[in-house]
Amino acid sequence: MNHQLSDLRKICLLGINPVTSAFAAALKNSGFRGELFGVDSEKIVKDAWGKTVITDGSTSLDEGLKNSDLVALGESKHLPEDTFAFAVDRAASDAVMLDMISNRHRLDRSIAVAARRDLHYIGFHIEPTLGTTADCSANIRAFFSGKTVLLTPQFKSDIPAAEMLTTVFVACGASVHSMNQDKFDERHAQFDLVSDVLKFLELETILRNCRPEQVVTQHLESRISQQLDYCSDSRKSEWLKELADNRSEVIKVLSTIEATVGNLRTNLLIGSLDEHVASVIQAGRALLSKAVSSEGPELIVNTGDSPRVMQAIATAMAEARIAIDRIERLTERGDGYFKLRLLSLDERARAESVLRTAGIETEQTD
Amino acid sequence: MNHQLSDLRKICLLGINPVTSAFAAALKNSGFRGELFGVDSEKIVKDAWGKTVITDGSTSLDEGLKNSDLVALGESKHLPEDTFAFAVDRAASDAVMLDMISNRHRLDRSIAVAARRDLHYIGFHIEPTLGTTADCSANIRAFFSGKTVLLTPQFKSDIPAAEMLTTVFVACGASVHSMNQDKFDERHAQFDLVSDVLKFLELETILRNCRPEQVVTQHLESRISQQLDYCSDSRKSEWLKELADNRSEVIKVLSTIEATVGNLRTNLLIGSLDEHVASVIQAGRALLSKAVSSEGPELIVNTGDSPRVMQAIATAMAEARIAIDRIERLTERGDGYFKLRLLSLDERARAESVLRTAGIETEQTD
Repeated sequence: MNHQLSDLRKICLLGINPVTSAFAAALKNSGFRGELFGVDSEKIVKDAWGKTVITDGSTSLDEGLKNSDLVALGESKHLPEDTFAFAVDRAASDAVMLDMISNRHRLDRSIAVAARRDLHYIGFHIEPTLGTTADCSANIRAFFSGKTVLLTPQFKSDIPAAEMLTTVFVACGASVHSMNQDKFDERHAQFDLVSDVLKFLELETILRNCRPEQVVTQHLESRISQQLDYCSDSRKSEWLKELADNRSEVIKVLSTIEATVGNLRTNLLIGSLDEHVASVIQAGRALLSKAVSSEGPELIVNTGDSPRVMQAIATAMAEARIAIDRIERLTERGDGYFKLRLLSLDERARAESVLRTAGIETEQTD
Repeated sequence: MNHQLSDLRKICLLGINPVTSAFAAALKNSGFRGELFGVDSEKIVKDAWGKTVITDGSTSLDEGLKNSDLVALGESKHLPEDTFAFAVDRAASDAVMLDMISNRHRLDRSIAVAARRDLHYIGFHIEPTLGTTADCSANIRAFFSGKTVLLTPQFKSDIPAAEMLTTVFVACGASVHSMNQDKFDERHAQFDLVSDVLKFLELETILRNCRPEQVVTQHLESRISQQLDYCSDSRKSEWLKELADNRSEVIKVLSTIEATVGNLRTNLLIGSLDEHVASVIQAGRALLSKAVSSEGPELIVNTGDSPRVMQAIATAMAEARIAIDRIERLTERGDGYFKLRLLSLDERARAESVLRTAGIETEQTD
C-alpha cells in the first residue's frame, strides 16, 4: 500500500463536483503532481479540464478506475446509479477509495466493501454539512478551510491511508478526525440525526394540535410549509434511509427524548422548572469545558509551511503505527505550526522520538 | 369610549422604542393629528421629538398618562419596573391600553387589569416575532408591512377599540387578527412554545448522550454553545415564566410529543417509517389547504386608499357590533382594496347592509 502522496501516480475523481474538485485542489496544494483523472459527463469533464481541475478525463468509469491508486467517489447525476458497486468491483488492487458521497447508505457500503479486503475504503464526512447550492459557488481553494473533516477508515490496515489524507486536508485549513465506523454512527445518530428527528416531531406535534378553525396566520402557514418542505426534501435525500440504517442508535435517542419530556413535565408540575433548566445549562457548560480539557496529549510541530515536511511527518507516524487523533493548524503561532493530538502519553513519547529521528522539531503544549 | 381615531386627543407612548415609534407613525398615517406624548429617558424623548416621532414628551409617567385616551406600553430600560401596574392604576377612565411589551406575564397582566374594568386593555403580538437588534435599525414606516398582528382584547366591550387599532395596522400593510386571550394562549403554546420546548429537549438529549471521550468537533461545540446561549437567553427573556404561565397547555403539548415519539419508534421497528412520514406530510399539506379554504366569508371593500374611509368602515362595523376576523390589503387589486373576513355568512350579510348605509361599496369574493 502506498501511503505517501508522492508514491501515487494516478488519482481518479468519479464524479466531478465542488467537493471532489476541492479535493483535487487540496492534492495539488500538498504537492501531488501525478495524473488527476476525472469521470463525469462530457461537458463537465471538458469544463474541469479547461479550469485545470483535472489533467485528463473521460465519461468511462473503466478508464478512470484503471491503475488508479486513489479513487475519490463524488456525487454526480451523470454517472450510473450502481457506480459505487462497479468501482468496488473494478478498482485496482490496493487502491484507496475515499467515499465523498454524503448520502451513502452505510450498511450497503460496508457489505459491498467487505468483498474486497484488498481495497482501503475510507468514509469522508464534513462539518458543517454541505448545503448543496451555497457550496457550489464557493471558492474551491477555501473549501476546507475552517471545516471539520471526519474520516472513517474501514479496517486498521486503512489507517495509514487515512493519515495521508489527513495531512492533505489539514494543509488546506481543515481540522481532521479519524474514527471507526461504529463510533461515527453513534455520534451521527446522537448529534446529527437527533436534530432531524426533532424537526419531524415538531412538525407532527404542531399538525396534531392544529385545528382548521384555529387562526393560521401567514407566518405560521409559511413555518409549517417550510418544515414540510424540509421533511419532504430530507426524505428525498435519504434521511429516512439514514434513520433506518441507524435504527438501534435512533431508538436509544428516542428513549432519551422521552426521558427528557418526562423530566420537563415533572419539573413543570412541581414548580422546579427554573432549577432544572439551570442545571442542564450548567451541565452543558461543564461538558464543553471537559470536552476541551479531556482531549489527548498534544505535540506542536513546525513544518515551515512546507507540504513536504507535513508528508514526512505523516509518513514517519504511519510507519511507526502511531495514530494521530487530530491535526489542527495553530494560527496563533504563524504559518506552518500544527498541533497534533495523540491518543495517549505513551504514543506521544513515541511520536516525539520518531519525529526527532526524522529531523522534525517538536514541542509539548503542557 | 372613543372608538374612532378622530375622537382621540392625546395618545401616550410609555417607552419609546422601534415598536411604539412605528405605532406612532402608523397613527399619523391613519390621520391622527392630536397630541403624541412620549415617556422615556430625557435623551430618548429629545431624540424622538427631534425626529417628529412624538409631539411632546417627558420623563414622568404621570404627565404621560394624564388625559391620555390611548396608552401604548412599550419596553424601555429607563422606565421603572412597576410601570405596568402604575399605568393601570393612573390611566384616565375609559382609556385604551395597548400592551406592546412582548414578554409580559399574561397572568399578572389579567389580574392587574381586572381591577380596572373601565380600561380597555388590548394585548399586542406580532409575527414573525421581533428580533431585538435587527428590528431596531428597521425603517419604522415599513415596520408593520407584511407582518401579522394579533390583538387580544380583554373583554367584549374592548372589541370596538381593537377594531379601531386593526384599521391602523392594516393601513400600514399588516394582516390583523383579533382573538380572545384563551384562544391566543392555546395557539401560543401549540405553535410558539413547542418550538422552544423542543430546542431545550434537543439540548438536553444531546448532553445526556454526549460523553467526554466522544469526539467533540469545533462545529458540534459551537452548535452546543449556540443552543446553550439560546436557552440561557430565553431564560432571561422570561421563556420559563411563559412555560409556567401556560403550564396546562404546555403539558398537553408534551403529551403530544410523547405520542409522536412512540409512533416514530413503532414505525421504525416495524419498518413502516416511509409510510408514516409520507402520511404526516400529506396531512400537513391537507391542513394547510384546509386552513386556507375553511376561512370565514369575505367581503372586498374599496377605500380609495383613504384612511378616512377605513375609519368610517371600522366605525360602522363597531357600532353594529360586527366582529372583523381579519383585514388584509388586496395588493393584486391595486391600492385601496381590502378584504374583510367575517365570522359567519349572517354577519357578512349584516356587514353588507351596514356598509351600504354608510355609502361604502362592497363585493363578495365567492
